[in-house]
Amino acid sequence: MSAPSVTPATSTPKTSTRPRLFTPGPVEIPVRILRAMSGIQPHHRTDAFRAVFKKVSEDLQWLHQTKGEVLIIAASGTGALEAAVVNFMSKTDKALVLVGGKFGERWANICKAYGVPYETIEVPWGHAIDPAAVDAKLAADAAITTVLGTQSETSTATVYDIQALAKVAKARGKRFVVDAITGVGVHPLPQDEWGVDVVITGSQKGLMSPPGLATVSIAPWALDAIEGEKLPRFYWDLRKARKNLPAGESAWTPPVSLMYAVGEAITMMREEGLENVHSRHSRLGAATRAGAQALGFTLFSKSPANGVTALEPPAGVDASGLVKRLRDTHGITIAGGQDHMKGKMIRIGHMGSYDLSDIYVVLGALEECVNALGHKGTGAIEAARKGWEHA
Amino acid sequence: MSAPSVTPATSTPKTSTRPRLFTPGPVEIPVRILRAMSGIQPHHRTDAFRAVFKKVSEDLQWLHQTKGEVLIIAASGTGALEAAVVNFMSKTDKALVLVGGKFGERWANICKAYGVPYETIEVPWGHAIDPAAVDAKLAADAAITTVLGTQSETSTATVYDIQALAKVAKARGKRFVVDAITGVGVHPLPQDEWGVDVVITGSQKGLMSPPGLATVSIAPWALDAIEGEKLPRFYWDLRKARKNLPAGESAWTPPVSLMYAVGEAITMMREEGLENVHSRHSRLGAATRAGAQALGFTLFSKSPANGVTALEPPAGVDASGLVKRLRDTHGITIAGGQDHMKGKMIRIGHMGSYDLSDIYVVLGALEECVNALGHKGTGAIEAARKGWEHA
Repeated sequence: MSAPSVTPATSTPKTSTRPRLFTPGPVEIPVRILRAMSGIQPHHRTDAFRAVFKKVSEDLQWLHQTKGEVLIIAASGTGALEAAVVNFMSKTDKALVLVGGKFGERWANICKAYGVPYETIEVPWGHAIDPAAVDAKLAADAAITTVLGTQSETSTATVYDIQALAKVAKARGKRFVVDAITGVGVHPLPQDEWGVDVVITGSQKGLMSPPGLATVSIAPWALDAIEGEKLPRFYWDLRKARKNLPAGESAWTPPVSLMYAVGEAITMMREEGLENVHSRHSRLGAATRAGAQALGFTLFSKSPANGVTALEPPAGVDASGLVKRLRDTHGITIAGGQDHMKGKMIRIGHMGSYDLSDIYVVLGALEECVNALGHKGTGAIEAARKGWEHA
Repeated sequence: MSAPSVTPATSTPKTSTRPRLFTPGPVEIPVRILRAMSGIQPHHRTDAFRAVFKKVSEDLQWLHQTKGEVLIIAASGTGALEAAVVNFMSKTDKALVLVGGKFGERWANICKAYGVPYETIEVPWGHAIDPAAVDAKLAADAAITTVLGTQSETSTATVYDIQALAKVAKARGKRFVVDAITGVGVHPLPQDEWGVDVVITGSQKGLMSPPGLATVSIAPWALDAIEGEKLPRFYWDLRKARKNLPAGESAWTPPVSLMYAVGEAITMMREEGLENVHSRHSRLGAATRAGAQALGFTLFSKSPANGVTALEPPAGVDASGLVKRLRDTHGITIAGGQDHMKGKMIRIGHMGSYDLSDIYVVLGALEECVNALGHKGTGAIEAARKGWEHA
């Protein structure tokens, strides 16, 4: 492969005929899902829809590998995080919040809003939480009742070892609640087997659907823990969601179109097989990392997630300029860094329906961009293919 | 028109080839809207989507006739009711809740969940709230700071006189918050002109879209009232929504597909003209009432709403049997009564894109059903047409 010529941005012809998303959610929506959500939609209090509701509820149990209950909420993912806090905690509880990025911080902010006491374990952005540190903290503070963590910290593209963290929490008798919004459908998280009390996800990530549907998956042994005096709750009151579940109904009017979308998404995942979905994402992550590193990018995370890749550009190449050129010349939307990493990194999302060809698309464009912006780099596609093959 | 023959249910051939919704929300979704929500969807942090967000926000201001701000939430309508309570009230406030049905009661239940003191004014189901009674209550209890009301009480198909109620609240210096979920796009509610502080609606009613998007419209003079110490709030915190609004962004990930749906819905309403939308609903209500009364039904409401009609069947005809036969023989979904009116009434929804032909559809089927169920009735279509013409 010969090095692409370095052309000034202004004279480069636009290469794209349609927009493409490589964002860490919302992600590209497969045509099958767009079709599923745009048919005639029955009223939610009909047997026709109750059957859909029950099917999607069972699909979600399959996805989370739980014999517990997966409760569906009309909200974006943050709403489901709040629902977990107000249903599982009261002011006499104390949380240990695992913070390694923006979404770990969000747990702390929810506790703050409700006046729930909490401590944090903080690691620098891009680092994973150390289970031994969590164990030490739990040993040192008996008041802690609940650990609030994240499977895939989207702001840093870092995956935490949920299996090990769950083991620690369980051994200390603490409840473990996991934000797996960019984890589910990407990394394994067999809820019952690993002993995770509560797992949260949203529709617009591994579930390949538009945003607006979130879920709280409760393990069988944790179902009764939402009873009794908790924080103030009404819309988020999961007791009502549980009560209506056997009838195939939700607490409030469900997001009907998104139920069809998520149902179709899980049908697609069942066709592929859950292990295959996970291993494909493992290859997508490996391919993206290998290709980007071949171009001179530095991997930001010490424990890289497989649904999103965070990269620091080669010296001299401006991250914001990359985001802009990908958009304007290639029709590709990626994400930049958040908070203190704004303008210093790029984040490429590849969760959901993506395949190796999609990675060629984004890396091919990235290769053009870094060269156009003054850095000589080549071989992204070949490296990606090898990364895919050897993952 | 000759009377339809009375045929036993079992031998009647199914008349429908497709399901039809005449429910008080979610309502039938026009094809234009289904198409708008199923296109390729940009990421929400792009200029392409910010432009959509700004357009829909302005569309919503137009719809509510306010120079204030209409904040968009990913939730069903109940979530927006809760958002209004937690942003406009604290534990030192006291609410006066106007209760004439299930949705008035919902306000009270939200207050209860948050420990907010409240009083109620209760009227029998089907009756409107009397502004003079509200005035007397406000005069008698100076501790009341906020009136929580409903424009169109869906459980009884009753419309309240929001203009008169707003006048009373304003004169007494109280904040007035109105659940207009089945009112907006059906009955006029010019927010600024009538002096209503807060108006709530949802996507699946007059806005003709799937459920999952709700809005809180705040009048210009009430915008600052959400600042300071209120009830615990995080996902519902409208300060964050307000802060992000000028940039064309929401507090949390917005329900992207539903934003396109609602945008298209308001485009359709702008094309028709808001006054025409209201007068069409006034005719739809009149036509439905006239047609049903011709068949021997009794109007349940003393102040009938125009988006939904509640009817008690002719003597000897079972309401549940009607709902079932409309469904099984005609492919039509309507609603029954709620709570103590379960099995005693039917509710026919006609808000959104409905026209006189649709009313013929539901009344034609209803006429077949009452006759099949043992009551002789005829002339529904003719009465409906006259009702439409003279409304």
